Amino acid sequence: MKIVKTIQELQYLLKKEKTASRTIGFVPTMGYLHDGHLSLIKRARKESQIVVVSIFVNPLQFGPNEDFDRYPRDLERDTKLAEDAGADVLFCPETTEMYPDKPVVTVAVHRRTDALCGKSRIGHFDGVATVLTKLFNIVAPDKVYFGMKDAQQVAVVKGLAEDFNFSLEVIGCETKRESDGLAMSSRNVYLTQKERTEASHLYQSLIKAKNWLLDLESGETEKKMIEYLEEQTNGTVEYCKILSYPELLSPTAFDEKLIIAVSVRFSKARLIDNMIIDNVLERKESGEETCSVH
Amino acid sequence: MKIVKTIQELQYLLKKEKTASRTIGFVPTMGYLHDGHLSLIKRARKESQIVVVSIFVNPLQFGPNEDFDRYPRDLERDTKLAEDAGADVLFCPETTEMYPDKPVVTVAVHRRTDALCGKSRIGHFDGVATVLTKLFNIVAPDKVYFGMKDAQQVAVVKGLAEDFNFSLEVIGCETKRESDGLAMSSRNVYLTQKERTEASHLYQSLIKAKNWLLDLESGETEKKMIEYLEEQTNGTVEYCKILSYPELLSPTAFDEKLIIAVSVRFSKARLIDNMIIDNVLERKESGEETCSVH
Repeated sequence: MKIVKTIQELQYLLKKEKTASRTIGFVPTMGYLHDGHLSLIKRARKESQIVVVSIFVNPLQFGPNEDFDRYPRDLERDTKLAEDAGADVLFCPETTEMYPDKPVVTVAVHRRTDALCGKSRIGHFDGVATVLTKLFNIVAPDKVYFGMKDAQQVAVVKGLAEDFNFSLEVIGCETKRESDGLAMSSRNVYLTQKERTEASHLYQSLIKAKNWLLDLESGETEKKMIEYLEEQTNGTVEYCKILSYPELLSPTAFDEKLIIAVSVRFSKARLIDNMIIDNVLERKESGEETCSVH
Repeated sequence: MKIVKTIQELQYLLKKEKTASRTIGFVPTMGYLHDGHLSLIKRARKESQIVVVSIFVNPLQFGPNEDFDRYPRDLERDTKLAEDAGADVLFCPETTEMYPDKPVVTVAVHRRTDALCGKSRIGHFDGVATVLTKLFNIVAPDKVYFGMKDAQQVAVVKGLAEDFNFSLEVIGCETKRESDGLAMSSRNVYLTQKERTEASHLYQSLIKAKNWLLDLESGETEKKMIEYLEEQTNGTVEYCKILSYPELLSPTAFDEKLIIAVSVRFSKARLIDNMIIDNVLERKESGEETCSVH
């Protein structure tokens, strides 16, 4: 595996591959790799001839009171993990390489950000979209892989790729979970032992919500999720939401997919999780039983 | 010359050229082509194997009270002119092809826009940068050509290409002028006959300013330009400015290049012109005469 620190070197290296018409799979990460990241790299390995992994803790997507400085980093360990998972190239630029100057332009995200994490993390998705625009242009991949744990990110990136006409496929991959259901995240290391045990209830709340939704309105389901999480954890529930996906608006019978999404703030970790389901509201409101009566 | 109306068809067509490693020169325009545009196409013809010209009147770069609806259009004439100048492909998409939906993302321009046209045309350069991001991704050119009449646009596009790591060269080409010095512009058709005669004084004011700057401060020079234009034309002077280029900030002795820029509003046309010069302030403030005394 080649380790590359400059944009110029990476572009030089990839130009050869492109001239030879080799396909490029790309996994952008902020490092501190876990099995979730590794599953993305392995999938890219299966589907592409060249696999590029980037590790860059992007300051632009952190708010002033967020965890940019203390975000966990371990490049030595990440290097070994990425190589073992099948990466050909590891791109790990310094901040000054990616942002040599105050930017003239950034990406502004206008939709899919008024809900869930976008509501509290002002500017977060602008920062994500900006760094990905840069990385997509530098790497020019055929396919790019993201974990569905960050479902809102996937929704924004799909909008970015479509609106800016990037010639690439955005692939959202299933969330990897610990044995008790906790979604894998680099931020799980922030949890105390007690919180780590409680944290499995985020996933439990999603499973329960999916069942509640068969009988209850989405608003009632959200309430029951909050009650459940307040009972089972000492964290602060930031949101429990049922929305259309990928638009992230109040769900209607016309939406194909829904997202059940949850965020809980523990002492030092803000955890998120979600589940994407077929629209059950549709079935309830215009189901066969009801239609046959008319 | 191939005339292409959809993004998909253009990408399909250009993919073949890229696979064959042919270089692509790109001239993005809003149509109603004049000799200025044609000189860009001819230059692209000389420097590239494939020349793509786009004609798209981009609604995103017009303000609500600007001339989007009445902007001059003549696709039939443009087609002939582009072909004669050497274009291989003319891309002329409908608005719905470029913007099928309310955008999820756009480009926000943060610098080089607080002066000159950016000051009065709020959102104009965001719209320019957004459509160019799309076009750059669709065409993936090696070189892209702009007229220096829109020097601020060139400054913004250079920032865009650099910040978003587009693998292309932005080339600003010398302004084409009528025999009396008036910078060629699609908007010149808006001028009455009397205004057309007066309009040559924009260029005259730049030539005079360049000379005045050898003796006067930039502020005094700006004042004299305004006086001159108010005397010689019935238009309303929107700005006469001397700034650093490409940053477009108040000039200092450290700036390499300066821009002398002017905008005059006539009854139905808002005209702009500019001249880029080596920094004369530097010479005055730290010239050899002064240095030899120390």
